[in-house]
Amino acid sequence: MQIDLNSDLGESSDPDLVERDIRILGCVSSANIACGVHAGNPDLMRRTVRVAHEKGVAIGAHPGFRDQEGFGRKEITYSLAEIEDVVAYQVGALAGIAALEGANLSHVKPHGALYNMAARDLEIAEAIARAVAAADRRLILYGLAGSKLIDAARALGLTAAEEAFADRAYHPDGTLVSRDRPHAVIHEERAVIARALSLVNDRLMLASDGQPIQIHADTICIHGDTPGSDRLALAIGQALTEAGIRIAAVGKANA
Amino acid sequence: MQIDLNSDLGESSDPDLVERDIRILGCVSSANIACGVHAGNPDLMRRTVRVAHEKGVAIGAHPGFRDQEGFGRKEITYSLAEIEDVVAYQVGALAGIAALEGANLSHVKPHGALYNMAARDLEIAEAIARAVAAADRRLILYGLAGSKLIDAARALGLTAAEEAFADRAYHPDGTLVSRDRPHAVIHEERAVIARALSLVNDRLMLASDGQPIQIHADTICIHGDTPGSDRLALAIGQALTEAGIRIAAVGKANA
Amino acid sequence: MQIDLNSDLGESSDPDLVERDIRILGCVSSANIACGVHAGNPDLMRRTVRVAHEKGVAIGAHPGFRDQEGFGRKEITYSLAEIEDVVAYQVGALAGIAALEGANLSHVKPHGALYNMAARDLEIAEAIARAVAAADRRLILYGLAGSKLIDAARALGLTAAEEAFADRAYHPDGTLVSRDRPHAVIHEERAVIARALSLVNDRLMLASDGQPIQIHADTICIHGDTPGSDRLALAIGQALTEAGIRIAAVGKANA
Amino acid sequence: MQIDLNSDLGESSDPDLVERDIRILGCVSSANIACGVHAGNPDLMRRTVRVAHEKGVAIGAHPGFRDQEGFGRKEITYSLAEIEDVVAYQVGALAGIAALEGANLSHVKPHGALYNMAARDLEIAEAIARAVAAADRRLILYGLAGSKLIDAARALGLTAAEEAFADRAYHPDGTLVSRDRPHAVIHEERAVIARALSLVNDRLMLASDGQPIQIHADTICIHGDTPGSDRLALAIGQALTEAGIRIAAVGKANA
Repeated sequence: MQIDLNSDLGESSDPDLVERDIRILGCVSSANIACGVHAGNPDLMRRTVRVAHEKGVAIGAHPGFRDQEGFGRKEITYSLAEIEDVVAYQVGALAGIAALEGANLSHVKPHGALYNMAARDLEIAEAIARAVAAADRRLILYGLAGSKLIDAARALGLTAAEEAFADRAYHPDGTLVSRDRPHAVIHEERAVIARALSLVNDRLMLASDGQPIQIHADTICIHGDTPGSDRLALAIGQALTEAGIRIAAVGKANA
Repeated sequence: MQIDLNSDLGESSDPDLVERDIRILGCVSSANIACGVHAGNPDLMRRTVRVAHEKGVAIGAHPGFRDQEGFGRKEITYSLAEIEDVVAYQVGALAGIAALEGANLSHVKPHGALYNMAARDLEIAEAIARAVAAADRRLILYGLAGSKLIDAARALGLTAAEEAFADRAYHPDGTLVSRDRPHAVIHEERAVIARALSLVNDRLMLASDGQPIQIHADTICIHGDTPGSDRLALAIGQALTEAGIRIAAVGKANA
Repeated sequence: MQIDLNSDLGESSDPDLVERDIRILGCVSSANIACGVHAGNPDLMRRTVRVAHEKGVAIGAHPGFRDQEGFGRKEITYSLAEIEDVVAYQVGALAGIAALEGANLSHVKPHGALYNMAARDLEIAEAIARAVAAADRRLILYGLAGSKLIDAARALGLTAAEEAFADRAYHPDGTLVSRDRPHAVIHEERAVIARALSLVNDRLMLASDGQPIQIHADTICIHGDTPGSDRLALAIGQALTEAGIRIAAVGKANA
Repeated sequence: MQIDLNSDLGESSDPDLVERDIRILGCVSSANIACGVHAGNPDLMRRTVRVAHEKGVAIGAHPGFRDQEGFGRKEITYSLAEIEDVVAYQVGALAGIAALEGANLSHVKPHGALYNMAARDLEIAEAIARAVAAADRRLILYGLAGSKLIDAARALGLTAAEEAFADRAYHPDGTLVSRDRPHAVIHEERAVIARALSLVNDRLMLASDGQPIQIHADTICIHGDTPGSDRLALAIGQALTEAGIRIAAVGKANA
């Protein structure tokens, strides 16, 4: 049994948050690094790449909309060409930074509103997949499990990684409950751990109506932007390891 | 006889300036494209790349400081690591955009304050050269003729292109008169053309004391950010061509 | 007969565009100055305020969304509190700059997507009006003639200025044809002048179906962001003056 | 005995840091709120203003350079007019936001590099003081105790507040040891408390050579951007209160 744990990192230069990122990098197998558009900057990108590289954590681009005030969470109407551009720009920029550290990118995970729009809109998903393929066809494209982004990646011959969230509520149809709704984020550590174990062991997740739904997840997201997310990452990592589950990046063969 | 004409482009989405860029792209052999940091954005980068690519103009990154208000002209104290980061970020970002158009980068020319600091400070020049080499050792590094940036590029095994300015005043020691000084920019078309011809034919430039100085130039900059720069670019291009001088990018063999 | 001519200014530090702004400031009675969010910066704001103040042109804030890449033209989902905040921030910022020049603000005109959303959505219009009223109840609120923003301003006791566009196509219901549609912008000088005269003299505008519609306009917008807009501004100003129409800011009594 | 405790707040929307700000607002008497230029945004500014206003904490603008990547800590060469502009813009913007909450600004404290440059350069200090005076002559200008900014404020008739840092090392001449030097920031809680008590009770501070220097402080800064700063703020507040020292904003009379 194996699962990838991924986290969104490099989102703030605040010393408390840089330390939090370093702790999370000790627990996860894949790092999604903000690319200086919705958050981050070249110097923070490099420091995050360096720590990830040292710890053997897979390095991925985490492109978002240029909306630092809304942290890339606001849906903005972009043309499909603009979607391609904003993804290609950010993947290229992180690749440029990674080259300084002798590191390579392994994946791309869209951020925030771009992620949500790509989950439900096939044309947007295809635009993202085209930008990723133009950059490097070996890049793995992370998207919501069962979503349009997974379809678009595979249709273009890219490897897709299906992502689930142990700390987010799901609708019965397998879509995420929006963050602005009550109970959208699950904060209780034991509940989150139970959901993570159920996801990996049984491919099941309790939906908001209390019924289990089937979810195939290649990777579980540990959020870096909720209070106490570092403790939660550590706790989930320990619980999975104790349950005999290997934590490894999607691209790494199950040896 | 051959010379490269280069221009700084993609600095504004204003319709008047986009049209100006297109006119300039009809006259020059190399385009230095703003990378979304001191100016520009992913969409404008792509549109500029596309037109340059269609016209056979060599595509280069034009990285600058993140100082949009000062248009990248203010000198800012960056550590050498930060210099590397800000250059690698922008070169990577433009390479990502160019890949969408099936185009490759041929050169890098630092912008504004970064260009000036690299001309006189060897450590900064070396940091820029390291970032360019990490991105792609085939990239040509443009810098002020005879400056530290040329030395740093060659010391690292990169091809350097020595740049001169037909519309800027020079001190007797071959450095540029700062833009905030009177008479730093030469606006009169006939004077600029005469200086361009003298540069190419005789490797000579009249300095601010009226004496000629020797300058070896591989490329002449046509400024895109002075009023009427498109007419000037056209006039210089015509004058050079009529004088039997071939206008071609530095990387293109003199066939 | 009197009409206000207004223009959106201070949107770029490019020397060609700064000169264009200065020429436009010689023709119009009201300047809507970008506030450093969708465009502009403190220094450019001050220079634009100074020239407007010297020429007796009324100074207004032109607040937009923080979307410099899309020039504030993309519709973004903001909460009503965020709408208030982004307007209050920009009106306050320009008032701070104007104080340095001993000048006062006379009006506020939302920019781009914010303008369009306020024209059709009463809650957004009310949020803008609340922010303006909190800043200074004497500020005149500019909005599309007959739109929700005019209603919201008046409901809160603010003076509203109804705006029309001589160079934009109108639907038969009095709403603007979107810029991304063909023929949305009218470029022919004679046609624009004819529409301006018809607006002032007869309160009539030809809609896209060729039928005249009634529009009451207190102010006509001269666009600063279309090619050749300065020549158009000058031509409209001359044509109106020759027709015996006085060009004066909305707040200035018809003496 | 009375002292003002101030803290730099509203610098990040990260949920951990928003909670940290709220805890700090329970301990201090003055809040310096980032104005959307080196950090912050209109929405975060309003939320910080609201909590400060509810808790009776004095609200101040904390203007910095537009250098989000360097968090406003890089020294940038601005003309004196640009210094005025950047301060006026930010003070105006926060005043606009405060008006939405029915709150007024009480003070202005420059941030980072602008603070340091104003401490040693009288012309820059005067430019800041002019911008503050143009906005509202009742605003109190915070600056490093004994520095040029204090002189400039008083020369213009503004009230100045002399600031000291209990958690920063001082040179024997009363200037701060730069943050990039070792031991520039004092992290040990007991040491910081002892320094705060000595400052208030005896107007003395131990300099880096171990000798006491005289410092008159109207206000002590509790840094919001060092790890654990909220616990430190709470500890200092308690220690001062237990020592019989009243914590109150500079502008509030010692009743």
